[in-house]
Amino acid sequence: MAFETWLIAPIASLLSVASGLLLFRYVNSKDSGTGKMREIAEAIQVGSRAFLKTEYRYLGVFVAVMTLVLSLFLNLKIGAAYVFGAILSALAGVIGMEVAVRANVRTAHAANKSGLINAFLIAFRGGAVMGLMVVGLALLGISVISGLTGDPELVLGMSIGASTLTLFMKAGGGIYTKTADIAADLVGKVELSIPEDDPRNPAVIADNVGDNVGDCAGSGADLFDSYIASVMAAMILGGASPQSYLEFLPLVFSGLGILSSIIGIAVVRLGRGGNLGWTLNLSTYITCAVFGLLTFGATLLFGYDLRIWGATIAGLVAGIIIGLTSDYFTSINRSPAIKTAEAAQAGAAITILTGFSYGLMSVFPALLGIGIASAVAYSFYGLYGVGMSAVGMLAIAGTIIAGDAYGPIGDNAKGIAEMSGLGEEVIEITDKIDAAGNTTKAITKGFAIGAAGLTALALLASYQEIVEALTGKLITFDLMNPLVMMGVLIGMSIPVVFSAMIINAVSKNADRMIAEVRRQFREIPGIMEGTSKPNYAACINIATKGALRELMPLIVFSIGATLIVGFVAGIHALAGYLSGFLLAILMSNAGGLWDNAKKYVASGFFGGKGSDAHKAAVIGDTVGDPFKDTAGPSLNTLITVMSQIAILFAPLIITYALITL
Amino acid sequence: MAFETWLIAPIASLLSVASGLLLFRYVNSKDSGTGKMREIAEAIQVGSRAFLKTEYRYLGVFVAVMTLVLSLFLNLKIGAAYVFGAILSALAGVIGMEVAVRANVRTAHAANKSGLINAFLIAFRGGAVMGLMVVGLALLGISVISGLTGDPELVLGMSIGASTLTLFMKAGGGIYTKTADIAADLVGKVELSIPEDDPRNPAVIADNVGDNVGDCAGSGADLFDSYIASVMAAMILGGASPQSYLEFLPLVFSGLGILSSIIGIAVVRLGRGGNLGWTLNLSTYITCAVFGLLTFGATLLFGYDLRIWGATIAGLVAGIIIGLTSDYFTSINRSPAIKTAEAAQAGAAITILTGFSYGLMSVFPALLGIGIASAVAYSFYGLYGVGMSAVGMLAIAGTIIAGDAYGPIGDNAKGIAEMSGLGEEVIEITDKIDAAGNTTKAITKGFAIGAAGLTALALLASYQEIVEALTGKLITFDLMNPLVMMGVLIGMSIPVVFSAMIINAVSKNADRMIAEVRRQFREIPGIMEGTSKPNYAACINIATKGALRELMPLIVFSIGATLIVGFVAGIHALAGYLSGFLLAILMSNAGGLWDNAKKYVASGFFGGKGSDAHKAAVIGDTVGDPFKDTAGPSLNTLITVMSQIAILFAPLIITYALITL
Repeated sequence: MAFETWLIAPIASLLSVASGLLLFRYVNSKDSGTGKMREIAEAIQVGSRAFLKTEYRYLGVFVAVMTLVLSLFLNLKIGAAYVFGAILSALAGVIGMEVAVRANVRTAHAANKSGLINAFLIAFRGGAVMGLMVVGLALLGISVISGLTGDPELVLGMSIGASTLTLFMKAGGGIYTKTADIAADLVGKVELSIPEDDPRNPAVIADNVGDNVGDCAGSGADLFDSYIASVMAAMILGGASPQSYLEFLPLVFSGLGILSSIIGIAVVRLGRGGNLGWTLNLSTYITCAVFGLLTFGATLLFGYDLRIWGATIAGLVAGIIIGLTSDYFTSINRSPAIKTAEAAQAGAAITILTGFSYGLMSVFPALLGIGIASAVAYSFYGLYGVGMSAVGMLAIAGTIIAGDAYGPIGDNAKGIAEMSGLGEEVIEITDKIDAAGNTTKAITKGFAIGAAGLTALALLASYQEIVEALTGKLITFDLMNPLVMMGVLIGMSIPVVFSAMIINAVSKNADRMIAEVRRQFREIPGIMEGTSKPNYAACINIATKGALRELMPLIVFSIGATLIVGFVAGIHALAGYLSGFLLAILMSNAGGLWDNAKKYVASGFFGGKGSDAHKAAVIGDTVGDPFKDTAGPSLNTLITVMSQIAILFAPLIITYALITL
Repeated sequence: MAFETWLIAPIASLLSVASGLLLFRYVNSKDSGTGKMREIAEAIQVGSRAFLKTEYRYLGVFVAVMTLVLSLFLNLKIGAAYVFGAILSALAGVIGMEVAVRANVRTAHAANKSGLINAFLIAFRGGAVMGLMVVGLALLGISVISGLTGDPELVLGMSIGASTLTLFMKAGGGIYTKTADIAADLVGKVELSIPEDDPRNPAVIADNVGDNVGDCAGSGADLFDSYIASVMAAMILGGASPQSYLEFLPLVFSGLGILSSIIGIAVVRLGRGGNLGWTLNLSTYITCAVFGLLTFGATLLFGYDLRIWGATIAGLVAGIIIGLTSDYFTSINRSPAIKTAEAAQAGAAITILTGFSYGLMSVFPALLGIGIASAVAYSFYGLYGVGMSAVGMLAIAGTIIAGDAYGPIGDNAKGIAEMSGLGEEVIEITDKIDAAGNTTKAITKGFAIGAAGLTALALLASYQEIVEALTGKLITFDLMNPLVMMGVLIGMSIPVVFSAMIINAVSKNADRMIAEVRRQFREIPGIMEGTSKPNYAACINIATKGALRELMPLIVFSIGATLIVGFVAGIHALAGYLSGFLLAILMSNAGGLWDNAKKYVASGFFGGKGSDAHKAAVIGDTVGDPFKDTAGPSLNTLITVMSQIAILFAPLIITYALITL
């Protein structure tokens, strides 16, 4: 294959970054509202930046240590690539957050001054900045490293840098946001029956900060690491093949995917009818269609094997199907959410059991989708086909992330509208924007999990490739070898323990904040009457410190466990990590479902707001909070990180493993 | 090996059955108390028998259909063996229930007349009847079939008959018991703040019936199927080996295990100090020690390979370790339960999150234990070693089941004491007996899960053995083959969907019963004053009908899914079923933990009974109810059933599988 074709990748990435900056300017040019609104928005900005600054200081130390370890045990170049990847990931986080804290107040103001259509556009374009920057930076990074060095190991190093940082931003931000959310809801809504986003609630600013640092800076980068990892895995698999063009094909297709995303994002306009969900989904479908056409054209034009195109599209289709089933299991107007809402009449326990059982049920289509996609892709083009199916699924990540990052902007806009007293009509508009965000969020999560699943398979395959090249022996992961089985069993338990630690972190930290919020309501005179201001900073402080304190053991555990499992139980433990998907899907969907069941009750069914059923539904929602926004999304990344670290250390593990087969 | 040695098995089984009958007579000879007590006990007996009768009628149809299918597609002999196994399982259920409904009232009466020491002995011996009958009948069945025919396939047929019936008795009884328990607690304790086991509660008799049909008839047979399956798997693996004594060694060691259990049960006496937990554990340790000595002696005497003995003991030790860690994670005086109780101060959601995260954490030691035991056993004696480690773990099942079946007897005794107004002191004695039962229950569950895990590995191995013999090809379960991976992913989702269905069944059925209980409190005048009797029968009727109605889809799904997965995705899907253990451990331990956290709060901490913390803890307990007593214990059996059906149909699956490798 000609050297020039793969340049589609850096060109598309630069285009993507440029479009992102343009949209950033668009958002920033809008009016940021009244003095009161600006004041609230600034409090959220200050809190968000403070958290990110503190978090990056912690993570800086971690990156420094990892760089040292990689440079000493492997080589300096890998260390440098690692730092590069980490910086890219951190940058994506900062950009996503900076645009979100600007778009929120501008969306609220537009809702007030010029109505839904304009408000929606600001919120969506704010999210699009994140989407375009993330895929642009990711593919640019890969292009730079592989263009300069041609060494897939360095792309791997960069990918690990990006993944580890993403993991800890998601985990840290996830602990923060749910700490604040739970504390605000539990004391405010449940105990004192004051509305959500009420300025009398001391946790309210921390809650809004959480939307930004958790859902934007953290979860917006959800696909960042899978994206890089999938391209990298396919490149490694392609590099081992006799046909030279296979190594660069993932870059070409990803570049075309970015072009499709730019188109899919550019055409979004809300019609007069104002169906937000449909508009958002249309953007995704247009991106998919353009991607299908462009890659098909490229396949014919450059004479690629048509079966590779087939494998790529298999991944894309599976992604959409998984996204749609996630949507079914979590949407407010579908049977699972409605039945869970109905169960709330029998109390909190039944709500939780009902939602949990639907969450379990939702695991089935997702696993089936991943299974069928990988089998189809394999039948088309072997393991390389599996790698390309992951690339295909993630190719439209730009549009997917845009829809995801749109969510917290709408959520924040609603908060600002309520806190600055903008009136019922405006709140209703921001509410619509917020509700549409919940649906895209569920689809994105399904998509992210599917993508991580296929990527993990591709990583396993490239791992096998590397180990076989190193040892010159054929490797099989034979489950009937009890040493493999032991590895799988131990591997299975790592994501489980990780989930336990992160959920526990949220509930411990929320516990602290609940005590503080209760204290303020008890001790500050005039707080309930609105005559004196609550101490917002104290809550922000607890959320920040607590989240970062709880993050440390998670970091040590997840890196340490991977290496220990690798050196003790050998390479096969990796396969067991797949159990993580089961938990990831369960938690994401159950969490989304409880959230919408609560919204369904609040909208007037089964007793409506303030009823016992509503209280029960709020408890369900609270249990779901860390499921869907902390543990669930972190698990995907955990699996990607662990697989990659294992690949990077494969040569050492093979040499020094305690138990060999 | 000489023909005579294996006769240890039938002789020991007959001894076990005889001892069981003796203890039955002992229990029956005790005084059954005052007229009021007898009246209550009789209501429980009538309800329990009615449920079992109805359930057996349903299951009879199911057994008839299965027998027809097996006779048509395989052969008549297998059909006959299947019926034999099903009858044995049903018999074990009836005996366990019949002794439980006698021992409960006699324990309560003894607590009233002669104190803790005698009351404990009646409850324990009642449980011991179940333990001795279960292992006695199981090993007798195996001995008869293998002695008469020498055909391991028929032992497999019998084993499947026992397993499927156990599964549905556990699932059906589990749905029943938790329907009643949740409805009784939610309306009685939470909404109306009347005590547990209050005769004014319309669900109270159904709740006590549930203890018998769920925890005794259902869960007491928990190890019945694993026990048979483990012996059968080891016999198949041994039969394929050149050394002929290996085929019958599992029978010899199991026979010695039964003798050890008889000794371990016979020596139990509660000392003057009255430490119940210690007494129960001592019985287990004595059984283990005797088993270790007897098998070591047999190994030397008959010239068996000492490494086989090592593999057997590795399984036994792993079982104890897993049981002890389950105990740690669920005991009322350990940090997980206390911290969960503390979290109850922050509300129901935090209680649930804290308990759930500890439940996740507890998965780790159990999986590690199974992993290490299988690896050690394999290093001693290959796959046969793994099979024998499962036999070793289950050899002491008689004592383990005795401790488990003791639990619901104590629970019932407490209920009868409260309902017949026997006074504080008596209730306290029965409470002590009940509390000790919770600990043994947790240990048993850990043990059952570990045993099912090792048995599943042994079954997989024997499956491989059979398939290789049939096809003449070497089989590997290579995960890097995406068809295998697809099978694993689909297999992974079967236990998940099963859990979803069974939890949903409980919450739907509880919903119905809650409505009925609320209706009675609303519509029956004088019910709260105790001047008019509630309609107990209406609640019993809902629990019975609902449980059996919900059971049907479960039956169709679990058998159907196994065959469909087998024929579509091939034999490899089996390996994915292991994910079921993850869920089984999580649910059993989290459920036990919430139960004890509630008890901890109720005992006076963090506000004690009636406080908000107590209400929150009750919600946690309710969520845990179907986790620990319905879904968790059914999953072990589900995995055993599915593995065995796959083995039995292996020849057909190989011939007709849609996707072959």
